[in-house]
Amino acid sequence: MRVAPGVSFAADTAVTRVDGRTFAAEVIPGWDIAGNANGGYLLAIIARAVAEATGNPDPVTISAHYLAPGTPGPVSIDVDVVRSGGRHATATATLRDAEARPLIVTVATTTDLSRAEGPELVDADPPAMPEPEACVAMAPPDDPTASGDGGASGPPSFMHRVDLRLHPDDAWFARDQVSGKARVRGWFRLHDDEPLDTIGLLVALDGFPPTIFNASLPVGWTPTIELTAHLRARPPTGWLRCAFSTRFVTGGYLEEDGEVWGDDGRLIAQSRQLALVPRVSSLPAGS
Amino acid sequence: MRVAPGVSFAADTAVTRVDGRTFAAEVIPGWDIAGNANGGYLLAIIARAVAEATGNPDPVTISAHYLAPGTPGPVSIDVDVVRSGGRHATATATLRDAEARPLIVTVATTTDLSRAEGPELVDADPPAMPEPEACVAMAPPDDPTASGDGGASGPPSFMHRVDLRLHPDDAWFARDQVSGKARVRGWFRLHDDEPLDTIGLLVALDGFPPTIFNASLPVGWTPTIELTAHLRARPPTGWLRCAFSTRFVTGGYLEEDGEVWGDDGRLIAQSRQLALVPRVSSLPAGS
Repeated sequence: MRVAPGVSFAADTAVTRVDGRTFAAEVIPGWDIAGNANGGYLLAIIARAVAEATGNPDPVTISAHYLAPGTPGPVSIDVDVVRSGGRHATATATLRDAEARPLIVTVATTTDLSRAEGPELVDADPPAMPEPEACVAMAPPDDPTASGDGGASGPPSFMHRVDLRLHPDDAWFARDQVSGKARVRGWFRLHDDEPLDTIGLLVALDGFPPTIFNASLPVGWTPTIELTAHLRARPPTGWLRCAFSTRFVTGGYLEEDGEVWGDDGRLIAQSRQLALVPRVSSLPAGS
Repeated sequence: MRVAPGVSFAADTAVTRVDGRTFAAEVIPGWDIAGNANGGYLLAIIARAVAEATGNPDPVTISAHYLAPGTPGPVSIDVDVVRSGGRHATATATLRDAEARPLIVTVATTTDLSRAEGPELVDADPPAMPEPEACVAMAPPDDPTASGDGGASGPPSFMHRVDLRLHPDDAWFARDQVSGKARVRGWFRLHDDEPLDTIGLLVALDGFPPTIFNASLPVGWTPTIELTAHLRARPPTGWLRCAFSTRFVTGGYLEEDGEVWGDDGRLIAQSRQLALVPRVSSLPAGS
């Protein structure tokens, strides 16, 4: 389903260089959930500015600390390149809203992953899941008002920009029952199967519902404090196999570990985020 | 074994405020391995400056991108506080050597962990290990020239600043055989059992030998590109139970995931680093 003619992730994350260190961009409506732009989408905008400023296409590692939610409208990104000229370049970058308030502060190291090579040793398997057609869509294409956001008010238009298919065991909203394990597995692609570049992986890594929605805890939305992504390879075409899990909810914080695998069985990206665990009086639907 | 009178981690990571945003410190000889200061030790110096600048004692999440190795001598830390005044403060900070070359660039979010509270859900166990006395010391106290650094030249004086006891199955240098699994488990404390604060956990998270030394790969030292630490709780006194593992060596990179547990069974800290995997012609001792 095409949302509107010309809608694309590539266009919606484009940046324009304003001067030596400042870039301009626009947070496009539709990449939000209940009004706040998806954190991975915002991080992709920053990553585009960092990639252009450092001259390397691939942020092999990017760390983002989230200060305030972003809403549609103009933003600016200030990039300070701290090191460049070798195989890796490193920069700090800050995304600010139209009132110059900082929303996200990042450090990133970029490279050219097309030259990546070295010995291989993999001691893990991609998550086992039914085929995408047998999984549960977060927002069915034939139901544009479908919520599937686990409790926030209003239809998440974000779920029509990306195509998420959850493992049936992890789709608490469809089962009307949580799995009891803080885990979410599923397939990811952009709508219309738009080809994904390395930076697009950031949306996959922050686009799934919180793992904690599958646990029996009195917890609502979990705001991200910090997210670090390792983008280890350029993604292949087609569906990506994703898995997120949380092992430690303690002291008002939780971590969420993410993995993105190509359907060819290769690990493409990893993430870990630290999120706040606010208490709420009501449980998410189904828990 | 006391290395020298008055030697302490607290003193060796002290910072002095120079002006509103700049701190001075000294990289003390003895915290190095083969001449390069331990990355966790350097990060602790930065964290002290960030804690003082933000007015919060505990960096609950800190991301560091490593640009160049540090050697003993004076350093400066520039801290820019991006957000403050609430439960969390966020700052960027850069450590520079005496020639003002940037060595480490960081983003950190600080808080006061003594106020941390929330629901608990832990889906993991601390690593099972023999007691410290039955584990393998990286540098026996009665042998100050013992290397135990897995191949680098010269005695690592760092191993006399910290007390590391490896799980016998993971101590390749003592077994003269690698385990075949990219994992290192062991106990950690500062020498003389000096009490550890939250910031001291950074040394535990970057103080163990590389996991990859236990794998059968033609790989030598693995320089850290980026390390992110989540310091989830203030450490209890006594030995800390640590575990490090690597699941993905691909494309010239590897990740290393770390956990630090108190001996009371509580998770204290997590880390993930991305490291380079340079090929070497000779294997580390024992592989």
